[in-house]
Order: sequence, then C-alpha cells, then structure tokens
Amino acid sequence: MDSSSKPSSSTVSRTALVLLRLLTFVFLLIALILIAIDKQSDDAGNQIKFTDAYAYRYMISTIVIGFAYNLLQMGLSIFSMVSGNRALNGDGGYLFDFFGDKIISYLLLSGSAAGFGFTIDLRRGDSSINSFTEKANASASLLLFGFLFTAIASTFTSFALPKKP
Amino acid sequence: MDSSSKPSSSTVSRTALVLLRLLTFVFLLIALILIAIDKQSDDAGNQIKFTDAYAYRYMISTIVIGFAYNLLQMGLSIFSMVSGNRALNGDGGYLFDFFGDKIISYLLLSGSAAGFGFTIDLRRGDSSINSFTEKANASASLLLFGFLFTAIASTFTSFALPKKP
Repeated sequence: MDSSSKPSSSTVSRTALVLLRLLTFVFLLIALILIAIDKQSDDAGNQIKFTDAYAYRYMISTIVIGFAYNLLQMGLSIFSMVSGNRALNGDGGYLFDFFGDKIISYLLLSGSAAGFGFTIDLRRGDSSINSFTEKANASASLLLFGFLFTAIASTFTSFALPKKP
Repeated sequence: MDSSSKPSSSTVSRTALVLLRLLTFVFLLIALILIAIDKQSDDAGNQIKFTDAYAYRYMISTIVIGFAYNLLQMGLSIFSMVSGNRALNGDGGYLFDFFGDKIISYLLLSGSAAGFGFTIDLRRGDSSINSFTEKANASASLLLFGFLFTAIASTFTSFALPKKP
C-alpha cells in the first residue's frame, strides 16, 4: 500500500509470512504422501487403507485444501515481490489473508484432531495394525505442525488488519 | 479506553461479544452434562463410559477449559459494565481477548473434531452401542457450536486489535 523505502516491520512480517507458508506447504506435502500410501494387510488378510475410515478421508481432504490455499498464497507472494505491489489492492488483500489464514488454520486443526481422535483409540483396540496407525499418526502430527505454522501466520495477518474508523 | 458518549460501533460489538460468550457458555454446559452422564452396558454386560476413550477424555477437558474461560470473560464483562471501565486497561485487555478467543476457539474445535473422528468410525464398527455414541455425537455437535460462537467472537476481537504504529 504505502511505498516506504527502508525495510520496515511490515517487510519483516511479510517475509516471515512467506516462510511460514513455505513450511506449511512442505509439511502438508509430506503428510499427504504419508497418508496416501498408508496401507496394510491385517491378520485376516484384509487390506486396510485410509479410505476405510471417515476420519482419515476427512483428514486427507483438509490436507488437500490447505495445500491448495498455501500454493495460491505463495503464488500471490511471488507475484507481489516481482511486480512490487500486492495482487489484491486495498483492504481486500488484508481481509483475504485474515479470513483465509483463520479458516484454513481451523480446517487443518480439525483434520489433525479427527485423525488423532480416531487413531489413538484404534491403537489401543487392535495392535495388529500398528504400522498402519503409526503412519497415520505421523501424518496427523505433520498436519498439526502445518496448523501451527498457519496459526502463527494467522496471528500476523490479524495484526495487519486495517483499523476500523 | 476513550470515553465516547454515543453508542458507537465498539459498544455494539461489545454487546455482541457478551451474547456470543453467553451462547458458548450455555452450549458447553449442555455438552458437558451430555458427555459426563453418557454410559451404557454393551451386549457382554461391560459398562462403557466416556473415560474409556482418550478422544472423549480430551473432549471433556476442552469443554471444561472453554467453560472456565467463558466464565472469566463474562465476569470481566460484568465488571466492566458495572464499573464503567475495562478490568484490564490499555492494550493488554485487547491482547488478552484476542489471544484468549483465538486459543480457546482452536481448543474447542480440536475437542469436537477428536470426538467426531472417533465416534463416526466407532458407530460403523459396533452398532450395539448406538445410544452411547449418539449422546457423544450430540455432545461433540454442541461443542462444535460453542467453537463457532467463539470463532465469531475471535473475529470481533481481531478487528478490535490496536493498530501497530
């Protein structure tokens, strides 16, 4: 918006935002791969994979949506760095960042919590599928880190909100 | 902070905040009662209750913490209405509201998602405990509404943040 020449606190927090989004992106990518390739045969010879549990299907949906959002945000950041101004001008950009980060952070947390809520008790019930639930747990943990980075980004974009008159 | 005499937009949003916290409080109270009294004997005669699942134990913890936070916030609101000024003066009050609402809304959502993540798949596996899982589902739904109210309150308190210089 304003064209100050010295590296201000807004430039610092914008760089921090890009880093946080890059970290979220990487963690979500690994979480996606982990849960997508997670399959195992149990004692009875039945193959189980993530599509067998609603909790894991929901988890993978939240990962994909979070992944797409972070890709979009990084694209917008690169565009604004190259062109020198924000892709969304005026208050619209700040509102998009604020609500985007807020909603996506809620989404990622709900996916991770649903995955953990299902896996933790599943592991106590059936120890024959430990390798399956361990990979699912790892995926939910990475998703939780993705949430944490997005929650920090959401704090930045909350403070960047334009003050109401 | 400033003592404007006419009912400003800040007064309106403060009233909305109190209403949202009252709604959250009521929903969490019902959710707490529902999950706490939820017990049933299965076909084998074993009694199951919420303490048998980590997901439900986590859920009840988030309800209790959210309940305590909303009680505190309503107490502070009543104090500020009676005394005419905020209990926490300066920017501290706004920061407390902002981070409080943000963290508690994340907590409530994670509790609800963990409960749902466990219950949805439990219901598919064992139909003999339908009454048990239905009450747990109802409790998780009420908790989700509590989260929604807190998330809206969190949006209000984000916009009320003091603008950095």
